[in-house]
Amino acid sequence: MNNKIDTPRIAVFAGSFDPMTVGHWNILQRALPLFDKIIVAVGINTEKHCCQPLDERMAHLNRLFSNTERIEVASYSGLTVDFCHEHGARYLLRGVRNMADFEYERNIADINRTVAPDIETVILFAEPQYAAISSTMVRELMTFGKEVQDFIV
Amino acid sequence: MNNKIDTPRIAVFAGSFDPMTVGHWNILQRALPLFDKIIVAVGINTEKHCCQPLDERMAHLNRLFSNTERIEVASYSGLTVDFCHEHGARYLLRGVRNMADFEYERNIADINRTVAPDIETVILFAEPQYAAISSTMVRELMTFGKEVQDFIV
Amino acid sequence: MNNKIDTPRIAVFAGSFDPMTVGHWNILQRALPLFDKIIVAVGINTEKHCCQPLDERMAHLNRLFSNTERIEVASYSGLTVDFCHEHGARYLLRGVRNMADFEYERNIADINRTVAPDIETVILFAEPQYAAISSTMVRELMTFGKEVQDFIV
Amino acid sequence: MNNKIDTPRIAVFAGSFDPMTVGHWNILQRALPLFDKIIVAVGINTEKHCCQPLDERMAHLNRLFSNTERIEVASYSGLTVDFCHEHGARYLLRGVRNMADFEYERNIADINRTVAPDIETVILFAEPQYAAISSTMVRELMTFGKEVQDFIV
Amino acid sequence: MNNKIDTPRIAVFAGSFDPMTVGHWNILQRALPLFDKIIVAVGINTEKHCCQPLDERMAHLNRLFSNTERIEVASYSGLTVDFCHEHGARYLLRGVRNMADFEYERNIADINRTVAPDIETVILFAEPQYAAISSTMVRELMTFGKEVQDFIV
Amino acid sequence: MNNKIDTPRIAVFAGSFDPMTVGHWNILQRALPLFDKIIVAVGINTEKHCCQPLDERMAHLNRLFSNTERIEVASYSGLTVDFCHEHGARYLLRGVRNMADFEYERNIADINRTVAPDIETVILFAEPQYAAISSTMVRELMTFGKEVQDFIV
Repeated sequence: MNNKIDTPRIAVFAGSFDPMTVGHWNILQRALPLFDKIIVAVGINTEKHCCQPLDERMAHLNRLFSNTERIEVASYSGLTVDFCHEHGARYLLRGVRNMADFEYERNIADINRTVAPDIETVILFAEPQYAAISSTMVRELMTFGKEVQDFIV
Repeated sequence: MNNKIDTPRIAVFAGSFDPMTVGHWNILQRALPLFDKIIVAVGINTEKHCCQPLDERMAHLNRLFSNTERIEVASYSGLTVDFCHEHGARYLLRGVRNMADFEYERNIADINRTVAPDIETVILFAEPQYAAISSTMVRELMTFGKEVQDFIV
Repeated sequence: MNNKIDTPRIAVFAGSFDPMTVGHWNILQRALPLFDKIIVAVGINTEKHCCQPLDERMAHLNRLFSNTERIEVASYSGLTVDFCHEHGARYLLRGVRNMADFEYERNIADINRTVAPDIETVILFAEPQYAAISSTMVRELMTFGKEVQDFIV
Repeated sequence: MNNKIDTPRIAVFAGSFDPMTVGHWNILQRALPLFDKIIVAVGINTEKHCCQPLDERMAHLNRLFSNTERIEVASYSGLTVDFCHEHGARYLLRGVRNMADFEYERNIADINRTVAPDIETVILFAEPQYAAISSTMVRELMTFGKEVQDFIV
Repeated sequence: MNNKIDTPRIAVFAGSFDPMTVGHWNILQRALPLFDKIIVAVGINTEKHCCQPLDERMAHLNRLFSNTERIEVASYSGLTVDFCHEHGARYLLRGVRNMADFEYERNIADINRTVAPDIETVILFAEPQYAAISSTMVRELMTFGKEVQDFIV
Repeated sequence: MNNKIDTPRIAVFAGSFDPMTVGHWNILQRALPLFDKIIVAVGINTEKHCCQPLDERMAHLNRLFSNTERIEVASYSGLTVDFCHEHGARYLLRGVRNMADFEYERNIADINRTVAPDIETVILFAEPQYAAISSTMVRELMTFGKEVQDFIV
């Protein structure tokens, strides 16, 4: 079959990953066959109140994906679409868990299409068993001393 | 870059396409760089009341995509995931226009994941200017003698 | 105050009104100060399974509004926006009860904007106590011999 | 503890159950501790196109719950709230899977509150793994010759 | 009828109740026949900006329910499901007013099911006339010197 | 036609307008034929973190509408319905972009109907191409040094 296109398909999977949940992990694993490379991009958000320092998060993610050949880990500040351009990524990979996610992601995708028409947002539905899991929820459970190993990677 | 994966990425874009709208067309064009091949699959639904006979629809779609190397046109009856398996397609391409679409597609994707875990549903958001356009709406406008050239391909 | 605009503001309030509910009535009463005239337009839908014959519905609506100077009653077939044009109406008045209504009405309004850009869709929210009332529900209650006087006008 | 109320709490769980899915079953099992009795009430809908004849469905449900002391099986035509009254049931048990269900059930509950203010609608959320499963979907899979044992009871 | 189950059905109705609205009150009254006891549990949230001090809220709630035999008032910090366990409550009672509530409550219920599978979330729909009322709205109206007696208890 | 009503129809279009977007502008232009006067009312929100000082925003809006005879610009603190009363406005004009907007506006409208029954909320749907544009999004793009001239007026 020689009609395969030549440009590598690179996607950015952006987030705070504070922490990375089993939901994030599941989206990544399902999306991996679709792309030639996925960059897990940790957004540096100075305003957002974080739980785990950036360097520790980066170290953890680097360890997690050290054996996954086509996944890279990076951090960035600024707009996500600018990060995409700098890394030759044409795709933004997003998981959608529910209606609120859907509306939020659609708005972001519409704006991104205006400021960066060459970037395409690709959506996978969260699998039902992961749909209620968020980093925020995990941090809250940790605050109350709950075991969260089932929710994170 | 030698970490490109070797299996061709084949997607099925299924529908009645009665008629194919500019919204369908837009999803196809945007998805084309993501896949090595997209099969436009016309579902033969004996119950659904159709406007244009299947053979005319097929002829029209074949003409439309005769010059698009990586798009094929086919018809099928039966389950869409079975059609995917028969054609080596691992991806179901779907456009989502609004909340109702979102819920419908999520349910179908969840069921498909159960009966065919190897098939992944890939979602693109409809662009805003196409979000209200559907084949049903086009057929209704045609019934009332309205010009629909802006809505179809 | 002499900056009042001169063209009369005419709205069309279209529906099957089979029967007209207290929800329809409430929207009409609340919208009446906003417009110079509202045309209650009964769509003749040959496919829709109706409960009360068109002539009886028309007679009932004519009686209902015989004393309301700025409300007229008419029937129409064809597209609603064409009816608007024929009657010099620039506004389509719609009540929205819930999310499903919202999406439906938004789609229709978007399409109408394309085929008749001079027609504006004006939305009022249904008051909460009427939000669950629909003609369909009333017809179903009637089928089971229930008293429906609280729901209709 | 002697402040337990004396009236038995009887709920009606109404549906076509054509067939009863694992989702229905799950709602029943989770609701059982909450009520003193649950009546699985098979609505006889002459218009709805059914798959399995009523008597076979009833026989199957009777077998299913023959050992569950506090679950009874019955069929009914007419309004569900009337059936409740006839059986001394003050509660309508409903599972909600998604937004569309939510709006539908809320409308029905609002209407029921008007025609039968003594009946309370009690909602349980479908568990995520069952949220996409419906009788309609099961019947469709059966039409295409798919194995559906994982979806039904 | 001797098939009534013996374990008392205890529900927790948790919130800030700052202030308790007529919507909260309505849910409680409608749910009271369903449970043997309902514990109105005031969550102590150190981060949330409150209007009325905790001790005043507790005093007010204790007065409100001093004559309601099967309602108790308590305060708690920590996870709501832990509070349930400490008080032998198997049910979390929640009112749902709209879509946003629905998604929020479904997520919380899904997480709770994972960390405390023995706790069941029971949902009642808010009655339409109370669906727009929230403690936040009441506090805002109070800030602007509006009369809020119709909204609170 | 002498059945035009005599009271001028005055609407308030309230917001922070920090900045005014093309979406706001579009709603205003489409609503202008419907009303005799529209007051663009800049809410003074001491808590909200603003980008452009109030006096600059007011100056900009005054310039924008200096040639639009039936649009006035004003600022206000307090409840919007109180501002309406002070200015003889019976209508609150709102644009709705999506589901989240819809629920938010419906709640506000329901509350307003209770505290000020003479004020009617009038909704226009955002046109699709503007549905993703918000002042918040514009401010965020500005933070990252992006060009926003396409989004604001």
